[in-house]
Amino acid sequence: MTSKKIRSVEEMGEFGLIDHLTSGFTNRQDSTQLGVGDDAAVIDHGSYVQVVTTDLLLEGVHFDLVYTPLKHLGYKAVVVNLSDVYAMNAAPRQITVSLGISGKFSVEALEEFYGGVKLACERFNVDLVGGDTSGSMTGLLISVTAIGTALKEELILRSTAKNNQLICVTGDLGAAFMGLKILEREKQLHAEEPGFQPELTGYDYILERYLKPEPRVDVLLALKEAGIVPGAMIDISDGLASELLHICKASECGCQVYDERIPLAEETKEAAAEFQMEPMVAALHGGEDYELLFTVPLSDHDKVSAIEGVSVIGNITDKKGSALLVGNDGNAIQLQAQGWNES
Amino acid sequence: MTSKKIRSVEEMGEFGLIDHLTSGFTNRQDSTQLGVGDDAAVIDHGSYVQVVTTDLLLEGVHFDLVYTPLKHLGYKAVVVNLSDVYAMNAAPRQITVSLGISGKFSVEALEEFYGGVKLACERFNVDLVGGDTSGSMTGLLISVTAIGTALKEELILRSTAKNNQLICVTGDLGAAFMGLKILEREKQLHAEEPGFQPELTGYDYILERYLKPEPRVDVLLALKEAGIVPGAMIDISDGLASELLHICKASECGCQVYDERIPLAEETKEAAAEFQMEPMVAALHGGEDYELLFTVPLSDHDKVSAIEGVSVIGNITDKKGSALLVGNDGNAIQLQAQGWNES
Repeated sequence: MTSKKIRSVEEMGEFGLIDHLTSGFTNRQDSTQLGVGDDAAVIDHGSYVQVVTTDLLLEGVHFDLVYTPLKHLGYKAVVVNLSDVYAMNAAPRQITVSLGISGKFSVEALEEFYGGVKLACERFNVDLVGGDTSGSMTGLLISVTAIGTALKEELILRSTAKNNQLICVTGDLGAAFMGLKILEREKQLHAEEPGFQPELTGYDYILERYLKPEPRVDVLLALKEAGIVPGAMIDISDGLASELLHICKASECGCQVYDERIPLAEETKEAAAEFQMEPMVAALHGGEDYELLFTVPLSDHDKVSAIEGVSVIGNITDKKGSALLVGNDGNAIQLQAQGWNES
Repeated sequence: MTSKKIRSVEEMGEFGLIDHLTSGFTNRQDSTQLGVGDDAAVIDHGSYVQVVTTDLLLEGVHFDLVYTPLKHLGYKAVVVNLSDVYAMNAAPRQITVSLGISGKFSVEALEEFYGGVKLACERFNVDLVGGDTSGSMTGLLISVTAIGTALKEELILRSTAKNNQLICVTGDLGAAFMGLKILEREKQLHAEEPGFQPELTGYDYILERYLKPEPRVDVLLALKEAGIVPGAMIDISDGLASELLHICKASECGCQVYDERIPLAEETKEAAAEFQMEPMVAALHGGEDYELLFTVPLSDHDKVSAIEGVSVIGNITDKKGSALLVGNDGNAIQLQAQGWNES
């Protein structure tokens, strides 16, 4: 036996860690069509498939109750899971919500949280079917699992991008990260000077993008109406760079996207300027946008460009391992994953 | 508007809280056959149904890493969910495992944990299909979701007990709680005197019952072979009393069980004697046995009594709200739920 170095979790990063820990597992059930490695697992039910996805949200890691209203948090905890279901081109059907609750929470506070869960269930037509509730020694922790269905032929994976396909994103990117930066700044100022009143007017758009993300089911419907079948799809939870790399790795391809085509809201640019940072950094690495990233055949260029809220930002290449961001000057840099989850 | 009293979560108790928070939710999906309120949710797939269940396990609340080997913990985290699936008379198929990990964990420690998950997957023929991994500010937290399937006519709920049916339990009760008491005692002694060596020999049975519970799939097979169809079924996670009350509430019936018929292992009695406590208290309220509690028609008395590992402990009555424990002297006391989760 060789002596083994004890490795820290940080060294390995989230995605490397999951790959490593689950590498020895083999699937036994005929119904397991796809396990770990996409936005959701896929379970075969004959003519249709079911997708299953789950997310943890932890106080102090993923949210701060100082500036996050509990109703928004309940809504967001559901929506970030539905976003994964939609990213498989599936319709969400059921969710479970588990909570670890510390002593500081009243029943009224939890009613607020469940009010947000209920709003999301009503808006996206899903049923709350279970969960577990426990005391927690520390803060609030939330674990949501979402289940959806899709016709077998309609399912879209991240592994099916093809050379020359166009790369598209919905909405604009980086806004949620800038919203978070504003909230963190005002919290800090308040902590330094107790009488300080947080000034949040004028930041409505980016704050809403952070506190109340909306999954892009509207764009999925528009794609269907336009007769466009995406090649690969993923939701943008960890920043554009990380998601592009996921698609390239899973599809064994490369990509190039153009700096000037990446959609940024004016509000995002303005907030970035206040922090003297490049808004593109927020778009590439900020995360929590919950927009969709997908590819379409080159022949669908005109059709996809006509859909409101969709930007064509580049194309898939056959250069495996090469994920390039091309600047206005024509120079290209290799994209690196720096999502929140990987720090 | 009337002024509302702020209520604490403790006042309401776990089950009251879940009922309260989910009371405003209505199901929209045709496929949602059963939501919150049984061991698992039930999703309709035509000729068969799918059951979905989820459990949280939190360091400092549900387990103590001082005396819980990580491999055992991984195994147990899966098995407690599979136990819920089996309690619906369904076969488990897929699981997701989410982890919140504090900085103190090495990759090697997580490999140990996943070794236990893998062992459970192999033994019970289930596939690990997903999960989420996150940093945690505090201890280890585990959220597992299990999915199983059953033929529609084979599903067994907790709401289908009928008057005069016999009440049966598998195995013996209270052992896991006494195992935990021993582990807590030795931890305490070690804390008081650092050189102290924990003395665990002779407690193998009750320690194993706590650290490595086994779902009673063997009894389900034996029932099937004997042609016995249970009326209602539930797994014993919070203690016999709590589970009997769940069945009575869901089935709108009463019950009477006989003190002398409740199965206790010798090792459980001996350990209880060391703590000068009644072993029956561990059986009624200790929890974590993961045995099955079920009812069968009176006419199956002889057949069910012949199955190894099954004890007939009483019968269902039509006295709604009356759940009685009958002592050797013929006197009866009303059972109260005092499971761990409700303290």
